[in-house]
Amino acid sequence: MKNQKLSAKKTDQAMRSVCPISNTLDILGDKWTLLVVRDMFVGKKTYGEFLASPEGIPTNILAERLKRLEQHGIIHKAPYQQAPVRYAYQLTPKGEQLSEVIKAIIKWGLENIPGTRAAMMEKSES
Amino acid sequence: MKNQKLSAKKTDQAMRSVCPISNTLDILGDKWTLLVVRDMFVGKKTYGEFLASPEGIPTNILAERLKRLEQHGIIHKAPYQQAPVRYAYQLTPKGEQLSEVIKAIIKWGLENIPGTRAAMMEKSES
Repeated sequence: MKNQKLSAKKTDQAMRSVCPISNTLDILGDKWTLLVVRDMFVGKKTYGEFLASPEGIPTNILAERLKRLEQHGIIHKAPYQQAPVRYAYQLTPKGEQLSEVIKAIIKWGLENIPGTRAAMMEKSES
Repeated sequence: MKNQKLSAKKTDQAMRSVCPISNTLDILGDKWTLLVVRDMFVGKKTYGEFLASPEGIPTNILAERLKRLEQHGIIHKAPYQQAPVRYAYQLTPKGEQLSEVIKAIIKWGLENIPGTRAAMMEKSES
């Protein structure tokens, strides 16, 4: 029991604390990761679709975030084309559970940041 | 109307998009800011109390985050001691509206990250 805090490690590094906020931020706490998650919620699946989002995510950041999200079981990828192989990315059930986080952030942003609009989270037709 | 996107600027830089998630992440999207907000939700008010939290926030990051949160109207500060002056920090109504974001993150973390515990968000008695 004394080692509970130390034994509860993530795959890559020690936990900063047992706080669920701290540990969630260690995975999702940056300016880009939740935008990729958002894109998957609206039906985007490919590298090219993520790159085309209006925020202009840099390719190296996108590649790193997709890898990290996959390592944490938040997304999974499957090839949709061979030679060259290309992957489609989708949320896992664990990733889909982020909908409540996304919704709460949308609500706070719309109510507190002038100039924001909700349209981007409408389900895309594509 | 054509300039709607360009005219909706934050105080310090252009918006990445009109998405409320993107704009919220521009303020709160890092590994530390929401931990300071969490601390205020459990009643912590002083620089020393924030520094004493288990994650061990570096002093320069804490100072920068408090300044940013104040600039965005999420917290306010008031002196509680003179010579030397010391400040107590509290959430504004805009900051208190982050409770739904915090709750959603706690729920996701508890359900998806082994080793996390909810105790830290129980209201402190101090």
